[in-house]
Amino acid sequence: MTLADRVRAIVGGANVVDEPDALWTYAYDATMGYRGQPAVVAFPASESQIQQLVRAAAAADAPCLARGGATSLAASAVPPPESLVIDTNRMQRIESFDANARRAIVQPGVVTHAFRDFAAARGLCYPPDPSSEAGSTLGGNVATNAGGASAFKYGVTRDFVTRLRAVTARGEVVEAARPAAGPVVDALIGSEGTLGIVTQIELRLVEPPPARALRAAAFESPTDALARAPRLLETGLVPAKLEFLDAQTIQAIERARPRGLPEDAGAVLLVELDGEPEAVRAEEQLLLDVLADAGAGLEIVDADTAERWWAARRGLSASLSRIRPAKIGEDICVPRRALADTYARIRGEAESRGVPVAIFGHAADGTLHPNMLYDPSDPTERQAAAAMLEVIAAVGLAAGGVLSGEHGLGRVKRGFTTQAMTPPTLDAMRALKQAFDPDQRLNPGAMWPPV
Amino acid sequence: MTLADRVRAIVGGANVVDEPDALWTYAYDATMGYRGQPAVVAFPASESQIQQLVRAAAAADAPCLARGGATSLAASAVPPPESLVIDTNRMQRIESFDANARRAIVQPGVVTHAFRDFAAARGLCYPPDPSSEAGSTLGGNVATNAGGASAFKYGVTRDFVTRLRAVTARGEVVEAARPAAGPVVDALIGSEGTLGIVTQIELRLVEPPPARALRAAAFESPTDALARAPRLLETGLVPAKLEFLDAQTIQAIERARPRGLPEDAGAVLLVELDGEPEAVRAEEQLLLDVLADAGAGLEIVDADTAERWWAARRGLSASLSRIRPAKIGEDICVPRRALADTYARIRGEAESRGVPVAIFGHAADGTLHPNMLYDPSDPTERQAAAAMLEVIAAVGLAAGGVLSGEHGLGRVKRGFTTQAMTPPTLDAMRALKQAFDPDQRLNPGAMWPPV
Repeated sequence: MTLADRVRAIVGGANVVDEPDALWTYAYDATMGYRGQPAVVAFPASESQIQQLVRAAAAADAPCLARGGATSLAASAVPPPESLVIDTNRMQRIESFDANARRAIVQPGVVTHAFRDFAAARGLCYPPDPSSEAGSTLGGNVATNAGGASAFKYGVTRDFVTRLRAVTARGEVVEAARPAAGPVVDALIGSEGTLGIVTQIELRLVEPPPARALRAAAFESPTDALARAPRLLETGLVPAKLEFLDAQTIQAIERARPRGLPEDAGAVLLVELDGEPEAVRAEEQLLLDVLADAGAGLEIVDADTAERWWAARRGLSASLSRIRPAKIGEDICVPRRALADTYARIRGEAESRGVPVAIFGHAADGTLHPNMLYDPSDPTERQAAAAMLEVIAAVGLAAGGVLSGEHGLGRVKRGFTTQAMTPPTLDAMRALKQAFDPDQRLNPGAMWPPV
Repeated sequence: MTLADRVRAIVGGANVVDEPDALWTYAYDATMGYRGQPAVVAFPASESQIQQLVRAAAAADAPCLARGGATSLAASAVPPPESLVIDTNRMQRIESFDANARRAIVQPGVVTHAFRDFAAARGLCYPPDPSSEAGSTLGGNVATNAGGASAFKYGVTRDFVTRLRAVTARGEVVEAARPAAGPVVDALIGSEGTLGIVTQIELRLVEPPPARALRAAAFESPTDALARAPRLLETGLVPAKLEFLDAQTIQAIERARPRGLPEDAGAVLLVELDGEPEAVRAEEQLLLDVLADAGAGLEIVDADTAERWWAARRGLSASLSRIRPAKIGEDICVPRRALADTYARIRGEAESRGVPVAIFGHAADGTLHPNMLYDPSDPTERQAAAAMLEVIAAVGLAAGGVLSGEHGLGRVKRGFTTQAMTPPTLDAMRALKQAFDPDQRLNPGAMWPPV
């Protein structure tokens, strides 16, 4: 019996894709330039079916990949060749939602944005807001420990998971709750589907902030904006979001769909404040005072304009894709005060290599997303973009940063781990993977340091 | 060469204890009723010395235990017999403190309270506040993922660690930073010194809340108080602290040192609110409204009285120790709405067995600390107290809770893991330990499910 036949026997023929043409749809994620043709895609409806699927893959000695919204920007969800893809899109049930206890139990295929809306309609807030939330799933968010613009103030996915169920490489179910049994929960979160496949998630919810204010400012130069960001925080301001967009990013947005962003500015900072109305007003005043002190070349915009600019920020990823046939995004995280210098180094490298790069990021966390815009059909452009990935990783590490702010390592940055970590740390990483998945069954090729 | 000789060669004779009488001091932690005589205690001054000590233990095939303040209440810091104890008390340096970046780098032996004071003096707040903070160390807090009364609003130790260095069972140094390389950081946090010995910690700090208010209320019955606690939170109130003390706890405090707590009350709730002044005032009004609605038998006290009661709460552990020669504390965590019923079951079991038990806890988290007060020299009392530990674990698990709210599993509750977890989850736990420490060198006997 072939793997596809076994899979059909488990989930039913209507829930299997194995025609080569149709499989092509599942050969990639949101990371451009990375593809891998799976052998078969299954759409299970239950944890028990996922267990059987993992066992079927083991019997056929095929690798397994759990797939949610496939919005990874680190190629974490690109299938290993000849793999069994376990797509969680039929598992979109919110199993329970207890507004009083502020807890929800969800299946892994629930779309992040849908869940955030569901919670908001019931008077609660689920803070993690990855930019891909319109398509990303909560299972994928757990697998990548997804962050978002509000991570600085509110935390990342890990901070909201209170209990997990997952299927292991052997097809067994582990269930672990916090605070006890933390080690298993915490190893699974952020493991990019390489240690287990998340089948159920209990999430913590919080009270939504009662008031909110959006502001924005345009700067003459990107390094001015990035030097100002840490100083803003040093006043004691804790913004809900503090987004940075450079000139190249602004121009890409305006070319895709004009939103009135200042095309002649060197950069903009977008600020969202939230909390008690009184506190928001005080923070807004503090923000304006600190910015007013920034000197020439600064324009602070009114709330309506800020609202329009924020809308442009939300459509950013799509806008960048229109400039050149492809983009590949980096995701480094450096100490905040190294932001301006890190930016300048990356910009310098991009210019000397002639690679168009748009740089934006979450300034409060020190996260920068340089996006190389290139044509993958041109080998020179492709190589130049790939070389920039290496340069950016090295610049980030040299600044005392880490390889990933929020996208994870996936297939894009797995190789850089040997630069970022000492041999004993790499050994500890490998031992951890070996303990959970000795046969390299789950998402091989992603995240863990190459042996 | 004996182990003690090797150890002397590493840290110098003045930094070694190996006389049997002196070793007795290091044979226990804050958990009464658990003892283990080590072979030698070393006081290293550096990470490099810790590496050498772990290697010396391996050469002598002796187990190793890292020891901070030894304030564990789960016997996590009770030495394995004939072990090498690595005491971090000479490593109390705050290596860097960057108020602007809100980051500190500390050695593991820094005392929690001293660090919190140090941060406060520089205008910042390190929220984790375990009750043992006067003696506990930051290294120990990381090893146990220590919580505290403010964990509900502000989070536990894990939420504030951004980077770690640790010495592995092989004597190698691993260094891992978030958000990338999370798996190694997250496996180490809360591992009770069984996966590595923490040698350096980078911590995140936050802005202190500008205003604070203390309130308290006395209730006729403990189940009234515990039924009221979840309803308070369901109004949207997010207290910084919400502490529960039952009548037995109140009486123990008053007998040790009178503080004016109401000895005829069934229970008290202590509430701390913090945040912007306006918001604190609004929350205080909401609190009073909800409590006023609680009906007969309730007394809400003024701020001065509340302050005195809070002082009593801080001295609680010492007060309990004076009632009977020993106490042993449980630490279960249940869904908030199961608190009243869980309390009633534990109280019923204690009464039918004739065991004096004082119960208090962090009501917002659903954490209860039933403390059995007994005389360890009386075998009947000792057995009855031990039997209560098992009963409490079973009651907590049956209520949908977990074995530990914040103390960890240590030696006290390690055996209960087989009740709390399914065999595949136990296997995953064991595999994780095996991956980091195949020779069971580090703190054997603590935390991990017995094989």
